Amino acid sequence: MMVSILFSLSENISADMFCSVFCRWYWQKEKREPYVKFMDTNYPPGFSYEDFGPLFTAEFFDANQWADILKASGARYVVLTSKHHEGFTLWGSKYSWNWNAVDVGPKRDLVAELAASVRNRTDLHFGLYHSLFEWFNPLFREDATSAFKTRKFPTSKSLPELYEIVAKYQPEIIWSDGDGDAPDTYWNSTGFLAWLYNDSPVRDTVVTNDRWGTGTMCTHGGFYTCRDRYNPGHLLPRKWENCMTIDRHSWGYRRDAPLRDYLAIEDLVKELAETVSCGGNLLMNIGPTHDGRIAVVFEERLRQMGAWLEVNGEAIYGTKPWRAQNDTVTPGVWYTSSPKEGKVNVIFLNWPVSGILELGEPQAKIGETQVKLAGYKDLLKWVALGEKGMVIALPQLTPQQLPCQWGWTLQLTDVN
Amino acid sequence: MMVSILFSLSENISADMFCSVFCRWYWQKEKREPYVKFMDTNYPPGFSYEDFGPLFTAEFFDANQWADILKASGARYVVLTSKHHEGFTLWGSKYSWNWNAVDVGPKRDLVAELAASVRNRTDLHFGLYHSLFEWFNPLFREDATSAFKTRKFPTSKSLPELYEIVAKYQPEIIWSDGDGDAPDTYWNSTGFLAWLYNDSPVRDTVVTNDRWGTGTMCTHGGFYTCRDRYNPGHLLPRKWENCMTIDRHSWGYRRDAPLRDYLAIEDLVKELAETVSCGGNLLMNIGPTHDGRIAVVFEERLRQMGAWLEVNGEAIYGTKPWRAQNDTVTPGVWYTSSPKEGKVNVIFLNWPVSGILELGEPQAKIGETQVKLAGYKDLLKWVALGEKGMVIALPQLTPQQLPCQWGWTLQLTDVN
Amino acid sequence: MMVSILFSLSENISADMFCSVFCRWYWQKEKREPYVKFMDTNYPPGFSYEDFGPLFTAEFFDANQWADILKASGARYVVLTSKHHEGFTLWGSKYSWNWNAVDVGPKRDLVAELAASVRNRTDLHFGLYHSLFEWFNPLFREDATSAFKTRKFPTSKSLPELYEIVAKYQPEIIWSDGDGDAPDTYWNSTGFLAWLYNDSPVRDTVVTNDRWGTGTMCTHGGFYTCRDRYNPGHLLPRKWENCMTIDRHSWGYRRDAPLRDYLAIEDLVKELAETVSCGGNLLMNIGPTHDGRIAVVFEERLRQMGAWLEVNGEAIYGTKPWRAQNDTVTPGVWYTSSPKEGKVNVIFLNWPVSGILELGEPQAKIGETQVKLAGYKDLLKWVALGEKGMVIALPQLTPQQLPCQWGWTLQLTDVN
Amino acid sequence: MMVSILFSLSENISADMFCSVFCRWYWQKEKREPYVKFMDTNYPPGFSYEDFGPLFTAEFFDANQWADILKASGARYVVLTSKHHEGFTLWGSKYSWNWNAVDVGPKRDLVAELAASVRNRTDLHFGLYHSLFEWFNPLFREDATSAFKTRKFPTSKSLPELYEIVAKYQPEIIWSDGDGDAPDTYWNSTGFLAWLYNDSPVRDTVVTNDRWGTGTMCTHGGFYTCRDRYNPGHLLPRKWENCMTIDRHSWGYRRDAPLRDYLAIEDLVKELAETVSCGGNLLMNIGPTHDGRIAVVFEERLRQMGAWLEVNGEAIYGTKPWRAQNDTVTPGVWYTSSPKEGKVNVIFLNWPVSGILELGEPQAKIGETQVKLAGYKDLLKWVALGEKGMVIALPQLTPQQLPCQWGWTLQLTDVN
Repeated sequence: MMVSILFSLSENISADMFCSVFCRWYWQKEKREPYVKFMDTNYPPGFSYEDFGPLFTAEFFDANQWADILKASGARYVVLTSKHHEGFTLWGSKYSWNWNAVDVGPKRDLVAELAASVRNRTDLHFGLYHSLFEWFNPLFREDATSAFKTRKFPTSKSLPELYEIVAKYQPEIIWSDGDGDAPDTYWNSTGFLAWLYNDSPVRDTVVTNDRWGTGTMCTHGGFYTCRDRYNPGHLLPRKWENCMTIDRHSWGYRRDAPLRDYLAIEDLVKELAETVSCGGNLLMNIGPTHDGRIAVVFEERLRQMGAWLEVNGEAIYGTKPWRAQNDTVTPGVWYTSSPKEGKVNVIFLNWPVSGILELGEPQAKIGETQVKLAGYKDLLKWVALGEKGMVIALPQLTPQQLPCQWGWTLQLTDVN
Repeated sequence: MMVSILFSLSENISADMFCSVFCRWYWQKEKREPYVKFMDTNYPPGFSYEDFGPLFTAEFFDANQWADILKASGARYVVLTSKHHEGFTLWGSKYSWNWNAVDVGPKRDLVAELAASVRNRTDLHFGLYHSLFEWFNPLFREDATSAFKTRKFPTSKSLPELYEIVAKYQPEIIWSDGDGDAPDTYWNSTGFLAWLYNDSPVRDTVVTNDRWGTGTMCTHGGFYTCRDRYNPGHLLPRKWENCMTIDRHSWGYRRDAPLRDYLAIEDLVKELAETVSCGGNLLMNIGPTHDGRIAVVFEERLRQMGAWLEVNGEAIYGTKPWRAQNDTVTPGVWYTSSPKEGKVNVIFLNWPVSGILELGEPQAKIGETQVKLAGYKDLLKWVALGEKGMVIALPQLTPQQLPCQWGWTLQLTDVN
Repeated sequence: MMVSILFSLSENISADMFCSVFCRWYWQKEKREPYVKFMDTNYPPGFSYEDFGPLFTAEFFDANQWADILKASGARYVVLTSKHHEGFTLWGSKYSWNWNAVDVGPKRDLVAELAASVRNRTDLHFGLYHSLFEWFNPLFREDATSAFKTRKFPTSKSLPELYEIVAKYQPEIIWSDGDGDAPDTYWNSTGFLAWLYNDSPVRDTVVTNDRWGTGTMCTHGGFYTCRDRYNPGHLLPRKWENCMTIDRHSWGYRRDAPLRDYLAIEDLVKELAETVSCGGNLLMNIGPTHDGRIAVVFEERLRQMGAWLEVNGEAIYGTKPWRAQNDTVTPGVWYTSSPKEGKVNVIFLNWPVSGILELGEPQAKIGETQVKLAGYKDLLKWVALGEKGMVIALPQLTPQQLPCQWGWTLQLTDVN
Repeated sequence: MMVSILFSLSENISADMFCSVFCRWYWQKEKREPYVKFMDTNYPPGFSYEDFGPLFTAEFFDANQWADILKASGARYVVLTSKHHEGFTLWGSKYSWNWNAVDVGPKRDLVAELAASVRNRTDLHFGLYHSLFEWFNPLFREDATSAFKTRKFPTSKSLPELYEIVAKYQPEIIWSDGDGDAPDTYWNSTGFLAWLYNDSPVRDTVVTNDRWGTGTMCTHGGFYTCRDRYNPGHLLPRKWENCMTIDRHSWGYRRDAPLRDYLAIEDLVKELAETVSCGGNLLMNIGPTHDGRIAVVFEERLRQMGAWLEVNGEAIYGTKPWRAQNDTVTPGVWYTSSPKEGKVNVIFLNWPVSGILELGEPQAKIGETQVKLAGYKDLLKWVALGEKGMVIALPQLTPQQLPCQWGWTLQLTDVN
């Protein structure tokens, strides 16, 4: 399995605006009171979303610095938002003249810079998020008025852009989003995907998701995302992804988010264990700032995750779901399997007060089964309970001796 | 004949920049030293032409105030630059999303406002200038790279826009410009003009010029413009126009232009007399400021021209060229004819010291010919010289008695 | 006599604001509706007067260009507003830290630059306007609350500044203003003036006006200004000045002023003739723009005035009032005298239709008196009417032959 | 003892500038290359420090939110920087017109707002930092040029300001700083302090530090600060303070500081234990952002510190140094005493792997001495070693059972 990261840079275009990505919708379309009031209080009369463009400066954007942090997080894939629903492209698209990061704001090709830096790190891959529709694009709205009988927008904007980013950046993931309530026939998704998998320069490596038109989500596509923060808690027959955000409420950066709005590292480790145990992939999103920084709280969470994976990575990377996903006796225990090594990985999120961990699922074989705590050198003692599972004696460790915090992994060999 | 005015509002987008309209080209493409230095000295590093967009505020733009001044100038047509070579549309074009005056800068439809105000004045008509090509549009540049074998740009941008402005604003003139070295077949000008003259809502009233692709200028089209400030000094067989600017050097407003860079009213009256005598139409351009004002010096020139036309308008409006354009004996004398009224109009730019004006062209008929000074009640005395013309005794007038300044008109009846 | 120019640069600080100099008062203190509305519509909430500081850029300010125009106007003195009521100093005052043109906005010493350029022109002198009080200075307001019993403000601000500008720029005029309803004892004007006239570096050359505390105006001081636009129409026993503005309504530049708000050159010539005839000096004010330009309409008026003075200057410069100020028979006729040359100058603003000018005041002496039209070579014919004055035959001149427009001067010798 | 917090809001004035507080010095005075380059790259030519004023917006500043975080940190005092060396006052000083937070930037009295919110929390007191000198104030520089023989600056600026803040905000601490190499006689510190302690409204409650002129630091004053980050590691005879910063390098907020530049909570707990054991007070500084927020990483550290003090506060608040400051046998062990309760507090920063803590200093009395782990209910077992101290058996606790992290406290009664 893998952990990936989605950069919702579209926040940036809103210049650290308190509502981030969706602010435009809340502010301009739904006219929700706090958003309207914030804009009225802090910006000149008539200030429009487009006026944020020149304020998106990204002067601190350093793709190598970002890539170092991303690599340190233990992620294997980085997925950058190339364009969100507001239509601003982070690359210099020919089809989005004067509404892209090369013409306006940073005056740099952010996609190209990050792609190069990410690919320069071992085992780190690069993918792109792309929104099909654009909230306020007049051509899309015209098509919508005709119930999508006309197709001015996909033919002059979204499809040319998709071909453009594949040709220019050869992404290993195309993370599509934003069908705008239009069917895949309007978007000609089938045509594009046929080209992508058969003829494109990434035909041998690319992976895609399931958001290609109304009705495709959770039904068709490379891996299923179903909905944001989808985490079913049980095994699914298909590849799927839990795409969630470290900020509890937002994909884009929110300047006014207090500490309590960020998930704690304990929450993130739990989310990862649950997702991977059920056959899913975790995509944790962070939102950089308008001046191009990864906020320190995000850096801290990513490095904490990387520290945890340093010890427990064998229970995550390249694993398969086991026959049980979580334990039936002790809550907070999740299983993955490493078939090649013949191991069952037991991730337990609470260290039992007694020092004895009871497991209802694995059945140990006396004389064969071995139990190891990831990051601890000695084998652990255990007692088989037959069909009722086994009990394992954990070592007594001081805070400094613990191999990690927030969750631990037992590696069992030769269990049923 | 008519006098028309072209508003090159595209200056505005450059925020009163000293080089105006063409600054972009000089600054970004040719990198001429003074333009580059001015930008480096006054703007942040990396400041781009697009960044002028939000600075184009037009907060003082008052279409009724403009229309009052335009009407007072004696003009019969107002031609507004709907889009110049930088591609910024003064109306909210669907095909120029986020690069138009409704999305960026003024947040108003400047074309609609001025059209309404102009049409609300008696005898004032409304037309639109439109640039086919756009200097930096990446789709146009891509087409140019293929020697115009591809036609991405006209099909997705310039043609949809032309149809859009005709449908929305029903202009009485389409003043086309900017072929970008591409032939009319690339622009599909024939197709558009066929629609314009046969099927469009303005098919019965519209007039166009001659700039529809390489090779059309001065060769094909409704009226010939040939080149900017074209003023041949002799009669032409076709309708033509002298399109010139009150600022000697620039179409757009230049903040740093001193008084000597503006034509004096004497120059403008001379230009008008010459042009109309040779069968042309004069188009005098002014460039408003980025905040939406007509600079006072332009207002002064326009009102001075209107004051002159108040007295001498019969020698200009609705006239035809006479058999002679200018006099063979006295310099600075220009002729027009008013066939319906059976008059020859003699515009003389210098009041002779002797008080006697010698004319080599008109042959007076004793007992029939009458000579009148426009704005003066009494008939003038004259002497016929047969084939050598006639001499006319001008009245002795104090400064306050003169009907006008800068040029005067004699109306001759029954001359050959 | 002299003509001088007051530059009210304080407009600049309001960034071309439509209300100029006094806008702050109308907007912030009186809260007049149009000013409040304009600010609310065009600026962010909470935008304050101080926020105009960085917008006062003066990037086009070229002291040599200004001095050329000022010299061309015929002025003999230039009076620059060194500080207006808003307290912003155009020089880098030590006593106005961070609220002066060197620290904020232009980042240049505008007083020093203009002083140098003006003094580099022949016969052009340099003076400084200075406002004693400052509308919103908290120390002044505190003093005012105590009915000026405390004197924190003059001791820490206005007096140190006055000494500073005299020492640094050695002005030939100190044009004081703005007593803020406080007596001269509060300002210690007597002490300052004693130093100025006895001990300062300009003690031999400096001239001052009459605005040094409540009750001094029109009562004490070097020359009397009495009120803005003071033009009594009769002779005064003391030196006085008509300080007025080319913009009919404002001292500072108003971006939204239309042509009709500027005095015509005819008005200015009339104002000059009236003022000088009655023993006054004319001070015509212009207001430059926030980016450091003299608007073209001001340049035009100044150059027109210079052209008029080129012909008629002998009737203005160095003249004294004559025994009569204006004619009793013909309106629009004003007299000055040039005692050294034994001449009476007759400025007539209307050229009589008859070609005969009747004068009720000068009594000609047959055989002695000579009459000359300034700018015209031949002596004029005249007839003496004894005590009833004289009549003068003006030459018949075509528009091009007139030596000037807007007013003419007759020079009479040997008249009583 | 107490923990206090210094808000160096002066960062804000630099608009989150990467170099923060001292940037001005490095950039403008020392012209260090990276600072100059950053400014050249990101700001318009001629951009000055004063131009940051309007960019200091503080729109998110919420004094109640700040006070909640400060209260949660366990601090007993909050010390706000009322004015740093750049002279910008966070209150609307009469003596700093147009260079204060009410006239420029936030347009709010930040001192008043925070004072009210802080005082509205139980056991939270309010003090003010104040810089005597100002780097670039021309009056200070003039005084410096005269080797401080003139005293224009203290009489017109720093002394009036000090009286003003005491009268308006009644601070419980005056944290003076910035002597500018001038003696206390120049600043008239003795006079001010005499008034402060004898006649001012805070004479019964106020505390001051030792920075009142050259030579006073570490020699005279209420408590000694000696130098920034002063932490001597041994007992001092006088009250002293360790004033340090959570950002390792800066007092002001640095946008570009990565995670590694912030002290970890382990570092902060260690700093606190060391300081209090040696009789000092810890002042931890944080720098808010230009838009008025406490960055999430600071909030996290403050709340972590508060969580630690929730368990271990009895070893900190109101304690006295014990006879020994740290242990002679086991490193990382620090002592404080609570004389009233008859307790010695043992703060140990490392949990011994053996579970046995050896202490060389306290001599236990058999049958009398009791040992308690703060936050744990049972008494601990121990063995007396006579003059060699004692050994204590720590309980075996799982991660979730530990009463706190990063350091623990033993409370010993009846030891010598």
